[in-house]
This record gives sequence, C-alpha cells and structure tokens, in this order.
Amino acid sequence: MSTYSAPVRDMHFVLNDIVGLEEITSLPGYEECSPDLVEAILDEAGKFATGVLDPINAIGDQQGAKWMGGEVTAADGFKEAYKLFVDTGWNAMPCSPEFGGQGLPTVVSMAVNEMWKSANMAFGLCPMLTGGAIEAIAHHGSDELKATYLPNMVTGTWTGTMNLTEPQAGSDLSAIRSKAQPQADGSYLISGTKIFITWGEHDMAENIIHLVLARLPDAPPGVKGISLFVVPKFLVNSDGSLGARNDLVCASIEHKMGIHGSPTAVMAFGENAGAIGYLVGDANKGLGYMFTMMNHARVNVGLEGVGIAERSYQHALSYARERIQGAPIGDKSGETKAIIHHPDVRRMLLDMKSRTEAMRTLAYWVAGQMDRAHNHPEATARVTHQARADFLTPVVKGWSTEQSIEITSTGIQVWGGVGYIEETGACQYFRDARITAIYEGTTGIQANDLIGRKLAREKVPGSTAKALLAEMATFANSMGNDESLLAMARQLNDGIAAMQRATDWLLATYDSNPRAAAAGAVPYLKLTGIVVSGWLMAKSAQIAAQQIASGASDDFYRAKIATASYFAAHQLPLAAAYAAAIAEGSAAVLDIADGLL
Amino acid sequence: MSTYSAPVRDMHFVLNDIVGLEEITSLPGYEECSPDLVEAILDEAGKFATGVLDPINAIGDQQGAKWMGGEVTAADGFKEAYKLFVDTGWNAMPCSPEFGGQGLPTVVSMAVNEMWKSANMAFGLCPMLTGGAIEAIAHHGSDELKATYLPNMVTGTWTGTMNLTEPQAGSDLSAIRSKAQPQADGSYLISGTKIFITWGEHDMAENIIHLVLARLPDAPPGVKGISLFVVPKFLVNSDGSLGARNDLVCASIEHKMGIHGSPTAVMAFGENAGAIGYLVGDANKGLGYMFTMMNHARVNVGLEGVGIAERSYQHALSYARERIQGAPIGDKSGETKAIIHHPDVRRMLLDMKSRTEAMRTLAYWVAGQMDRAHNHPEATARVTHQARADFLTPVVKGWSTEQSIEITSTGIQVWGGVGYIEETGACQYFRDARITAIYEGTTGIQANDLIGRKLAREKVPGSTAKALLAEMATFANSMGNDESLLAMARQLNDGIAAMQRATDWLLATYDSNPRAAAAGAVPYLKLTGIVVSGWLMAKSAQIAAQQIASGASDDFYRAKIATASYFAAHQLPLAAAYAAAIAEGSAAVLDIADGLL
Repeated sequence: MSTYSAPVRDMHFVLNDIVGLEEITSLPGYEECSPDLVEAILDEAGKFATGVLDPINAIGDQQGAKWMGGEVTAADGFKEAYKLFVDTGWNAMPCSPEFGGQGLPTVVSMAVNEMWKSANMAFGLCPMLTGGAIEAIAHHGSDELKATYLPNMVTGTWTGTMNLTEPQAGSDLSAIRSKAQPQADGSYLISGTKIFITWGEHDMAENIIHLVLARLPDAPPGVKGISLFVVPKFLVNSDGSLGARNDLVCASIEHKMGIHGSPTAVMAFGENAGAIGYLVGDANKGLGYMFTMMNHARVNVGLEGVGIAERSYQHALSYARERIQGAPIGDKSGETKAIIHHPDVRRMLLDMKSRTEAMRTLAYWVAGQMDRAHNHPEATARVTHQARADFLTPVVKGWSTEQSIEITSTGIQVWGGVGYIEETGACQYFRDARITAIYEGTTGIQANDLIGRKLAREKVPGSTAKALLAEMATFANSMGNDESLLAMARQLNDGIAAMQRATDWLLATYDSNPRAAAAGAVPYLKLTGIVVSGWLMAKSAQIAAQQIASGASDDFYRAKIATASYFAAHQLPLAAAYAAAIAEGSAAVLDIADGLL
Repeated sequence: MSTYSAPVRDMHFVLNDIVGLEEITSLPGYEECSPDLVEAILDEAGKFATGVLDPINAIGDQQGAKWMGGEVTAADGFKEAYKLFVDTGWNAMPCSPEFGGQGLPTVVSMAVNEMWKSANMAFGLCPMLTGGAIEAIAHHGSDELKATYLPNMVTGTWTGTMNLTEPQAGSDLSAIRSKAQPQADGSYLISGTKIFITWGEHDMAENIIHLVLARLPDAPPGVKGISLFVVPKFLVNSDGSLGARNDLVCASIEHKMGIHGSPTAVMAFGENAGAIGYLVGDANKGLGYMFTMMNHARVNVGLEGVGIAERSYQHALSYARERIQGAPIGDKSGETKAIIHHPDVRRMLLDMKSRTEAMRTLAYWVAGQMDRAHNHPEATARVTHQARADFLTPVVKGWSTEQSIEITSTGIQVWGGVGYIEETGACQYFRDARITAIYEGTTGIQANDLIGRKLAREKVPGSTAKALLAEMATFANSMGNDESLLAMARQLNDGIAAMQRATDWLLATYDSNPRAAAAGAVPYLKLTGIVVSGWLMAKSAQIAAQQIASGASDDFYRAKIATASYFAAHQLPLAAAYAAAIAEGSAAVLDIADGLL
C-alpha cells in the first residue's frame, strides 16, 4: 500500500505562476489571505490528508457504510476522522467569515479539497455536499434559516445533502413529483421518495440538513414549478437545541461499484405525518437555487477526477520503482530492472502525470476566474471572468472525470496482473472514479450545457469561446521566441485551430440543426478540455524554461517541461480528430433508424 | 436484466462477405464443413449461450467461486452448465477429428467462442484454457501423452490449465524458478508455486490437467532453460482410470475486481513428496511450446473484448429503448421520450455498436488468415497468410481488449446513475473487461511484439505491414466509384497514410533507438487496430451499398453503412493523432529523469 502525499510543489506552482494567487489575495474581500498563509494551510491539509483520511480509505472501500433499520453506520474510523476534521476547522475553512468560516479564495479551497478527494474520495463527499447546502442557504435562504442552520453546518457539526433525483426524474428534473403541503405556521409538509442521496443518512454528525426539491399544490408543471426546502433530520428548537425526529427515513442504501465508504441513500419523506420543511427563497424557483449548489458541486466533482487520478498515479509510480521485472529494451546492461525503466511503463506513468497536471491546472485556473468574478473591483472584469468560469465549468466537470477513468485504468495497467487483485488498491481508484462522470450531471449533460447555454445560446453567441481562442492564439504565436518550445508551439497552434473549426461549425449548426450539434457535444467538451489545458501547460513550460534559463536549479521545472511536452505531443493532436468527428460524424448518429441500432 | 442474444446476422455477414467462409470451407481439411453447417452451428450455439450460460452470468459475479481447504466450488449452476456444455459436444467442437473433435475452421470456432464470452466470460475461460492445453499437447506431446490425456480433454471431461506465472516471474518468464527433478521411471517431480492460474482448481471436471513451466536441474539460465510438463491433478492409471491424488494443491484463490465466476488459483506443487509430471516434447523448449498455447489464447482474449463489448451494447440498448427521460433536443413534439432519442445517447450507442462490429470483423478476418495459413494448398499463400495472422494477433489481443474497457464504460454511462448500482449488471461487464488487457500478455507486451518481431525484426523488416498498407490503399482508391462512400474513402485514405508514416518511422528508428520505438509501441498498436479494421468496415459498407443498389431490402445493410460511417468519422481520424504522438512523443517519455516522475 502506498501512502498518498499531497503534491504541494505542483499545487503552489499552479496557484502562484498560472492562477496568480498574489493578485487574487490582493482582491477586496481576501485581505485576510496571503501566499504565506496559503502555504501553511496546504502543508497542514497535506498532513491531515496523509495522516487521517488516507489510512481509512481502503477500509471504507472494504467495509462500506452499513444500513440497519433505517440507521447507517459509517465504516470503521470514519466517525472519528470526521470529528477530527470538524474540530480542526477544515469544514469551516472555505466558508464565509459571516457564518464562522475563514473566507479563503475558492482557488485555495480547491487545492485543499483536491487533497481530501485524493486521500479519501468517499469521505470527501460528505463535506462537499455540506458545502453545497451551505451555499444554497447562504445565497437564497431567509435570515432565520441562515441563523438556525448555517453556524452548525459551517463547523460541520451538522452535515448537508442535496435531494434532487427521484426514480422517474434523473437527468430530467422537470419530472419531479415530491410534494410540499403548506401549513398554517408557514412550514410545509414534505412527502416523496428521493434516490441517490449522497451521505443521506449516517452516524458522523448530530443532525443532517436535507435540501429537497418538491412541488407546491398549485405549482405549474415542469421545471418552473419546483421549490426548494430545508428538511432537517432532527427539528431544531428555537433555542438551537435539537428537537423531535422529523418524518424522514433512509429506506436503504445502494450497492455500488465504488465509493463504498459514502452511503448513497434512498430517502423516504413524509411516510407518516409528513416531514416538516421550510421554503428556501421564493416558491417555484427551487431549480435555479439548486443550480447554485450544482455549479459549486460540478467543479468539485471535476476536482474529484483530478484527486483520484493523482492518487492512482502515485500508487502506480511507487510500484514501478520497486517491481523488478525483465531487462528493458535497448538497455545495454541486459539486467533485469525496475519496471520504471521499461519505455512503455514510463509512457504510462508520464501519461498519468501529464494529464493529471493538465487537469489540475485547468481546474485551479477556472477557480481563479471564479474568485475574480466574485471579488474583482471592476464590473466589466467580473463579467468577463464569470463568463470564462461558466464556459469552462462543464469542461472541468466532464473532461476531468472522463480522463480520471482512463488514468485510473492505466494505474491498474502499470501494476499488471496484481493490479486486478482488490487488495492492491488500484481497483478501488478505478471503481471510485467511474461515478464521477455520472453524478452532478453526466458528461452528456455537461456537454449540452457547454454547446448550448455557454456557447451557441450565449448572449453574444460564442463570444467567450472566441475571446479565449484569440488569447490562446496570441500566446502560441509568442512561443516561437523559445527554440526549445517550437514543437510545442506548433502542436498548440494546431490544437487551437481545431477548436476554432469545431466552434465555428457548432455556432453555424446549432440553430439550424440542433440535433447534429448535440451529437458533437461530448467530442467538443473533450476537445475544449485538451486545448485549453494544453494552452495552460504550454504556459507552464514557458515559465519553467525561463526559470531554468535564469539559473533555477529546481528539478521541478525540468519535470514540468517533460509533462507539458508529453501532453502537447500525445493529447493536443486528438483535438483535430475530435474536430473532424464533430463536423463529419453526426450524420451517422442521426440517420440510423432506431430499429437498426 | 437484459438477455444476451447472439448477433448471428452480423456474424454471418462477416464470415461470408468479409472472411470468405465459402472459400475456407473448400480448403483441404475442411471438407466436412459447409456454410449450411456453420449456420446450424451458430443457431444452436446462440441458443445454448442464451439459455444456459447467460442465466448464470450474474450469479457467478455475485457469488464467485469459493475456496475451502484446498477445494474450490464453482458458483451455483456452473457445474450443471458445464456438464451440459460437455454433453452437448461444445467443448470438442473446435478440436481436431483425430482426437474426437469436429475439426471446424478456426473462424467458425471464433464465432461460437464469442457467444460463450458474451454470455458468460468467466465460464468461457474454462474451455478456453482447456483448448490451449489441448493444442500444446497435440502439437508437442508424445503419442503416449496424447493418448492418455487428449480424449478426455477434448470432450471436456477433464479441463486444462496454463501454469506460467510465479510471484517474481510475471511478464518476464525468464525468471521462473519452479523445479523439475528427473525420476528413474522417466517422470519428473515438480515443485514450486504458481499464481494467477485460471480455473486452476474447481469441482466441474473429474480431473484437471496442468501444463506447468519448470526448470530441470541442469537447465541453462533464462528462457532457454524452461521446460513444459503435464501435471495432472489425479494421476492416470494405465487403463485410463483415475489413480492417486497428485502432490499439488490450490493454496488460495484471488479476490479480483471481476470475473468472479472464474477461480484464479495460487497452485502449490510438490509441497510433500513432489508432484509427478511428464515432459512435453524436448527439455528446455517449454517456452516455445507455451507460445503455441499463448497465440491461441491471445486471439481468444481479444475475442473476449469483442464478446463483452457486444453484451454491454445489447444491455445498454435495451435500457435506452425503455427509459423515458426528458424531451430530446430539437424534437418538435417537446414530449419526454425514451433516451435513445437523445442525440448523445444515440452517439454512445452507435459508438459501442460500430467499434464492436469493427473488432469482430478484424478478429474473424485474422482467424480466416489462420485457417488459410494452416490449410491453403499453396505454400507461398500459407506463408503470406501466416505472416498476416502473426502481425495482427497482438492487435486483436491488445486493441480489442483496450477498446472493450472503453465500450463497457460507455455501457454504464448510457444507464447513468443506475448503471453504477451493481444490481443493474453494467458494472460487471466493465469489471470483467478490465482484466482482458492484462492477462495473456499486457497491451505493452503485445505492442512490443508487434513493433519488434512482427515489424522491425521481421525477416524482411516491415514487409507484411507494407503489403497490407498497399492492399488497403488500392481498396481505398477504388472506393471513389461510389458517390455515397466518398467521405469514408477520404477518411480511410487519411488513416492509411497515418499508418504508413508511423510504420516508416518505426522501421527507421527501431535499430538506432529501440527505446524511442518502444515508447511508441502502444500508440502504434491502437493505430493499426483502427486503420485495419477501418478498412474492413469500409469494405463492409461497400458490400452493403452494392446490396442496397441491387435491390436488397434487408435493413441490416443500412445499419452496416451507418456503423461503418460512424467508425470512419470518429475513429479513423485518431490514426493521425497516434502517428504524431509516435514520432514526436517519445522524447518526453525517455528524457525525464526517474526521480522527476
């Protein structure tokens, strides 16, 4: 078993040199934060991840959470780890100081959250869901709701959930049937069955605050008739103490392929008198409020892709260094050596490392756009940064998670036959990673959002993508000054040209033939992930080359040039293939009759 | 739960129109076989797959095989199904008539075997391993060994295994340490521990015939000192009856991510008096003999990729037809419909279908080359066909299995959140598929074989690849006559040009820089799989177009044009990306210092 060790050197490089942490921490609202503080936070978070969360990761997989008579018990060690997590203040860290948090920039929480996801993805889901619930209440709840629920949710004493899905309403939330009956006292009686509720029931917290989508009796049909309710497991007395058990029960938990440590609950609301709930914001606006949580959650699920890929890489690397097998091809000694010396094993390791770094760079860069969108003093800058964050959120979610499936699969491959044995641990990462491309909106849902709202149905259609393309092209052309990066500059330029072609085709096609555009949506999402992160990796290589030229002796920079070169040579050429598939591949998808499939 | 239904229409099309079954059945040695007989066999095999093997597939996954005190019990229903399999004659079907088999062409066994793998991959491994053991004994064993073991192995009353791997000897068989001590009676005492022995112990057969690699006391080191032995579980008396239990025991079985129904044994030989074994062929030539089995097994493992992908596709398709969710984009009715109507779901389904058909076409075509290599009356033709089979065997193994991981992953994605729940069944295909890219030689091992022995170290280096490239180019140029296939012809030509560039680069690089060539080996394997099967799919489309032009009303031909068009538009453009990665991507892999990974 390897031990996860947080990649703080790369995190600091991305934060400081690519995202511009110094600029972000100087924005109004982040005065309390400084690069020094961030360094201290990442160090402490790394220790917590390695020392507390990592040791119970495999236990969570092997034992899983256990359901009995409506009660759910987390796997051994989870309850104690969660208490330590809360007591150390990690749950509060990303929250607003208004409610007891530290108010750090999003990009700093990203780095910390990546560690939780690497060390123990199943555990990390619990605070992630709580964070989403906090956002929804903080942005849309009444002062009373905020005062009643947020303090304990921010500390983590109480956890939160998102109750969206019903058996007939998965990706299509318009089909939601759960009901909310208004009561004389201003509360509501909630009834209905919700499925796939992450950490919907457990024994780690004193109370669980469910955010539930349901319909009022007079609600219009479809998405415009969905309201959002706070439905606590235990009612809260006016003095803040816990009152009666609410009428909601965990009917069962799912038997999933992975994230066994995270209970996925079927929740039954109002099977008896009715579950007491409280309306969040205005009636019938619940879906929009839920999307406040969803966007938060989507970037965080993309980050799960980064975290699980990083862990899988470290695990594979440790084996490749110690496993002696065969004499490497072209090695003149003819001696058997560690498999890291075999060219194809090196290729696999560099593939994992370079793609993981590219995903991390993109995710943090998008978080940096979010921080600027929230806190930049100039309104026009806020709009521009928000547009970029919006455009790339589905890419971070969809692309990083799809990549993580491939990367964790390569992690098994490096181990070979032993990797297929569960005790080795490589399988867990592969099984855990598989859900990330599904929950919080499948890759197809993300891709439709990308080519629709974020591209073709943007206020000025395609304006954000075009501005990004222009900025990337300017950078690529400037790279020609550095001899050592000439090949990378050409590969990046080819990638940008492919993204330009695909963007133009989608903009020209979306209105006249939306089905053809939609058939190219997922390839476009992948293309965008590759090209935009390829640009950020080329930037990274340029900075590294400059550092080396000016005498830096840090080996990190040489490694960064290698990972960026690998990414440019192996991943950027895929952009042209996706562009061709988008423009030429939709006819076959749409022409074939259903019966012929 | 869906029920697997053998895709006999596509199988017949590939056999008859692409592989040339009529020509093969007219070859000397296959006189007993006719296209009519093949049709009858496929029909019966399909019924057996659906009626007997399919119903116990999920049971095998859920229960797994069970170990207790050295005995292994197969999952419920497996023993009964195996008895029926043997009694119906399916085990004997592909074997030589000399030993009681039906002596059918390899390509016919391929189609039948695909059904076993689709219906129940874990079950199918047992006859697959027996088949490999039969081949090794039939080709290299003495008449006495053949007479003693083959009749019962051919019927399936006894099963066979391959005992290669030891803890320190995985991909590198030169590190094998198991020992063989000659005895006065001409037998040997075998001792050592073997791991990853598929169906190494079970309760389905009366006897298990282990083929074991071990070293004689005076054996030279490395691969030139390995001999092959038959080591039966029960010794066989001179009258053919079963004698004493041999000194070998199943020490444990592995806890794997998938193929739970197939016990993967740790075998301990000679822990007491020594396990009695019998030398196969000459001393120290065991590795070569084992490769007789391995090549058989490699194509069959590639076929597992086809089979599990086909099953995953059928399973996803059945859900896509029945699951109602959301109003499809661009659908004017605005009504919620089955998800098959959503463009991205259609894209996923067609992606699964087209790649599976491409893999099937390539695997059967290679099997057709094997049949011609064995039975063609002209010696020069036999050599040419053998060279093609040799060149493409690692491609069928490596490419089809890697594809199957992606395709079964897409199978889960079509199901969405429900797909991640084990009860749905989609996870099993994904977990089962993952091993196929590892056992019988990892994808890296296949790729090194491809660029080495099959390309750069061929007697006339690259001659087989070049002849294939020329034949494919001639075909692509001839496609211009058909207006409807113009785009496909261009996409195929681009793919062929990419394979040509990559082939030239590897031939120019292999001797001077074998490590750089090896770093491009896996991309080249994938490129070759795409281009050669892209050519066969284009051939299929041309035939389908001709059939439609001449009035055929069979919808199958329209579907074939759609799958071929999809493959050409979505898969063939990847060839250029791989070619670029091969030529430009090795420096980063090799330049980075170990410590920087």
